[in-house]
Amino acid sequence: MPSTTKKPRVTREPDNATGSGRKRQAVVAAATSAFLQNGYLGTNMDEVAALAGVSKQTVYNYFSNKETLFIEIVTQMTNAGSDAVRDETSELRAATDVAEYLRNYAYRQLKIVLTPRLMQLRRVVIGEVSRFPELGQCLYEGGPKRAMAALTKVFSELAERGVLAIDDAEIAASQFNWLIMSEPLNRVMMLGDDSVPTPAALRRHADEGVRVFLAAYAAR
Amino acid sequence: MPSTTKKPRVTREPDNATGSGRKRQAVVAAATSAFLQNGYLGTNMDEVAALAGVSKQTVYNYFSNKETLFIEIVTQMTNAGSDAVRDETSELRAATDVAEYLRNYAYRQLKIVLTPRLMQLRRVVIGEVSRFPELGQCLYEGGPKRAMAALTKVFSELAERGVLAIDDAEIAASQFNWLIMSEPLNRVMMLGDDSVPTPAALRRHADEGVRVFLAAYAAR
Repeated sequence: MPSTTKKPRVTREPDNATGSGRKRQAVVAAATSAFLQNGYLGTNMDEVAALAGVSKQTVYNYFSNKETLFIEIVTQMTNAGSDAVRDETSELRAATDVAEYLRNYAYRQLKIVLTPRLMQLRRVVIGEVSRFPELGQCLYEGGPKRAMAALTKVFSELAERGVLAIDDAEIAASQFNWLIMSEPLNRVMMLGDDSVPTPAALRRHADEGVRVFLAAYAAR
Repeated sequence: MPSTTKKPRVTREPDNATGSGRKRQAVVAAATSAFLQNGYLGTNMDEVAALAGVSKQTVYNYFSNKETLFIEIVTQMTNAGSDAVRDETSELRAATDVAEYLRNYAYRQLKIVLTPRLMQLRRVVIGEVSRFPELGQCLYEGGPKRAMAALTKVFSELAERGVLAIDDAEIAASQFNWLIMSEPLNRVMMLGDDSVPTPAALRRHADEGVRVFLAAYAAR
């Protein structure tokens, strides 16, 4: 916390940069709230400026238009989600009990993705796909595509080590991803955040998905 | 075509009923177009009346409010999709080569669901879930829930006949459904209708999904 720092900001480059970065992040945070609540069409730059406590000109200094700002939001949110999921893959790579690790990986991925903010982001973006296709692309590439690319790499390595019997790691990664994610994801997308399964139910779901996956891909 | 019929409508009960039914269906068709293009919030009853070529009062005679009208749209569209998918299950029940039938069933389900109108319905409904949760419920119950219930019945029967080795037919139905539907469905939801895979790619995808499913559930 720099709250005790009394030096005038103008003399310190790094603080200036941080101050500017903070202001930019305040704009993104304000726009994120507005976007998740009111959608893309229902949000305007005046509101974002007011919510962030900055002038409209400041908003435009960072983001030349609403499109750019919303692409930044989708990128930040999906990357944060994907990075959290991907962090798990290094453990997976070193795993000796592959079944146990896949079960834990699946459960943690479910916990990371099924958060109200990420679910609402997905809903709003999907609702805008016909008007603003770049948002959907951004979500797809930062979300499922990135998660599946990381899994593809892991499965290739596990296949090389003879732990899994996989011909096409990309297909296997997609099947694993959707065996795990689909049912709860589709349920929550349509039925809302109250329908998120309990942790115990998510564990059972992950276990069942891994069981089917390994029936097809465990090394004999 | 009744275009050569000259009898005055008022004398023929069935025609009257049909005329009224046709007018109601014109309202639903007009509202469907408006809804798919402009979303729930972006559509109003005046527009629907104008598009259907009827008075606003006529629209209200059939549907007491916009909510009721949009629930009718979602119900009609998802039921039509589910009925088409379900029609395939009677064949599945009688199947002797279960792998071949599952592959064909999977492919046809993909072809039925991945149509631009159903995809756009899903997008619009999902985009409205936080404001109008009943639409999402309606889509979930008329769509995936119904399809999975039909599959659960079929898989129970195939398990009883010893064709499949399934403990929990509901879990197996959900896994089959999402192994097949997820990847293309999520891709098209986010990347738009131009990203629908070719028929050959859908066939390969269906085959791979069925292979994984049967690795877990084929009778030994």
